[in-house]
Amino acid sequence: MKILGIDPGTGICGFGVVEITKTNRPLARDFGVISTPAHTPLPDRLADIYDSMHEIIKLNQPDLISIEKLFFSKNITTGISVAEARGICLLVAKQHDLPIYEYTPNEIKKTLTGYGSAGKKQMQEMVRIQLGLEDVPRPDDAADALAAAITHLFSSRADLLAPSSHRLN
Amino acid sequence: MKILGIDPGTGICGFGVVEITKTNRPLARDFGVISTPAHTPLPDRLADIYDSMHEIIKLNQPDLISIEKLFFSKNITTGISVAEARGICLLVAKQHDLPIYEYTPNEIKKTLTGYGSAGKKQMQEMVRIQLGLEDVPRPDDAADALAAAITHLFSSRADLLAPSSHRLN
Repeated sequence: MKILGIDPGTGICGFGVVEITKTNRPLARDFGVISTPAHTPLPDRLADIYDSMHEIIKLNQPDLISIEKLFFSKNITTGISVAEARGICLLVAKQHDLPIYEYTPNEIKKTLTGYGSAGKKQMQEMVRIQLGLEDVPRPDDAADALAAAITHLFSSRADLLAPSSHRLN
Repeated sequence: MKILGIDPGTGICGFGVVEITKTNRPLARDFGVISTPAHTPLPDRLADIYDSMHEIIKLNQPDLISIEKLFFSKNITTGISVAEARGICLLVAKQHDLPIYEYTPNEIKKTLTGYGSAGKKQMQEMVRIQLGLEDVPRPDDAADALAAAITHLFSSRADLLAPSSHRLN
C-alpha cells in the first residue's frame, strides 16, 4: 500500500509518499515540495499545484491520500491561502478517484510522538526514525507531509483514531 | 465586454455574467448557482465546481473574472470551505487565461449602494435596478455574484477603486 501525505500551502506545498513493504515496514518512496517564487500571483500558484499534484499521483500511483485538516486560531490570512491550496489537492485526489483521509495537526503530532503538543524538531526526528532515514527529510513541509502519511498508516493499523471517521469521501 | 462574477462557496457557489452593451448598459446574460445536496463529500463538491466553472466559461466566454475576496472575523469553519471553493474558481479562471479581479464584501456593498454596511435586501434591489431586471435575481448567491461583476464594471469606469490594485494575476 502507498499513501500520499500532503501538507497544503500556496507558496510551499509539501508531499510525501510512504509505502508499506511486505515485511510491514514503512519506507519513504518520494517526497518534496511544490514551490513557486515569492510574489507569484495566487492563480498561477494554484495552477502549478494542480499540474504538479497530477504528476506526483501519476508517477507514484498512491492508493490513498492523507492530508492535514485545517485548524486556525492565529493567522486567518495564511489560513485562507492554505485552504485555497487544500481545495486544489482535494480536487486532484477526487479526479483520480482516491480515498482521502484527514487528520488535524494535533492528531498527527500525537500519533507520531505520543502527545499533541510535540515540537517541530521532535516530530521531524520521529519521521526520520519511522522511515529509517539517515537524515531528517527536508524541507520542513516535506517532513510534515510524510508525517501525515505515517499517521494514516499507524491509525489504520491500530484503529486508535478510527480512520473511517477521518475519511472525507 | 463580459464579466463573470463569482460568489464562492462549497455547498452553493453563485455565478453571474454581466455584459456591457454598445449603449453602455449592463445586462445580465446568465446567472445561477452551482449547488450540491447536503452531506455531499467535500472533494465531490469541489470537482463539481471545477467542471461547472469550465462549462460556464466555455458557454459565456467572459473577458474577465470578478470574485469576492475573503474576509473572516466570524465563522472560521465556513471560511475554510469558502476558501477551498475559491481556490477552484481561481484555478479554472487561470486555466482559461482570464484576468482575475477581487473585491471585498465591503467594497462591493459600497460600490452598489454608496456605503459598506448596506443590508442584503438593499444590495439585491440595487442589482435588480442596475441590470434592469423585473425581479431580484434568485437565489441570493447568484445576486451576490452579479454584484461582484457590477462592482468591477463601475470601478473600471470610474477608476474609483483603482481596479489595477484589485487585479490578482
